[in-house]
Amino acid sequence: MFFASCDPDRENLSLYSNADGSWVVSLPAEEVPPELPEPALGINFARDGMKRGDWLALVAVHSDAWLMAVAFYYSAKFTADQRKKLFDLINTLPTTYEVLSGKGGKKMKVATAANNNKRPAAAMVRFEFALISARKTSRALVSL
Amino acid sequence: MFFASCDPDRENLSLYSNADGSWVVSLPAEEVPPELPEPALGINFARDGMKRGDWLALVAVHSDAWLMAVAFYYSAKFTADQRKKLFDLINTLPTTYEVLSGKGGKKMKVATAANNNKRPAAAMVRFEFALISARKTSRALVSL
Repeated sequence: MFFASCDPDRENLSLYSNADGSWVVSLPAEEVPPELPEPALGINFARDGMKRGDWLALVAVHSDAWLMAVAFYYSAKFTADQRKKLFDLINTLPTTYEVLSGKGGKKMKVATAANNNKRPAAAMVRFEFALISARKTSRALVSL
Repeated sequence: MFFASCDPDRENLSLYSNADGSWVVSLPAEEVPPELPEPALGINFARDGMKRGDWLALVAVHSDAWLMAVAFYYSAKFTADQRKKLFDLINTLPTTYEVLSGKGGKKMKVATAANNNKRPAAAMVRFEFALISARKTSRALVSL
């Protein structure tokens, strides 16, 4: 699902997290400057030029960075103490990259170039699982 | 200088910090996905539709968010403890927005719509001063 939606033949796409915790691959905001920091643009163009695991890692790391940007954009008026509390909350959760690489607990089994054809669907389900950690991060913001 | 370089008649521009601590208004990276998280695009388009102080605050907040994204993009392989150390280092410095708004110590006197014509150059010098705090944030990364 995620892999297929990142078709390199489409325009430059980004992976967005919605406020309800769902994720969607979409075109960038039409209006610039955008209302919020934007996630990495053109993840679909990188899809077929890398090993699938490396590409997923790239998207995960960009997603983690973007979530931090959004978190601290929203908290621009926080004091240093409030920022510290927010960060500590976020930091209790593994990053998307950690879940993907298995360093944050349960390891994802990502379909590599060698087994792409065998189980792409399973790999996508697992990538969506990885994004749950980022989703929780988003929720931490709302509860603060 | 900064104000003039954000001409709304130019293409969509972003405010970048270089590795040496200098700042530059520039076009976005040509290659997508970009090597690093990108700062807010099209800051120049917002320049003349807002009060100057509000526009500077918008750019400052986007710059702070972007610096966090870059910091945590670089530290994708850090453990939670290392991320915490990095954040605590960053958080000892005021944000660009705090310096701009005077909440981080020395208050910047930003030229508002009312006194734009009197001292735009002074306002720009002060905005550059605000960015020094962000620059220090970048340096904290390198020293970690």
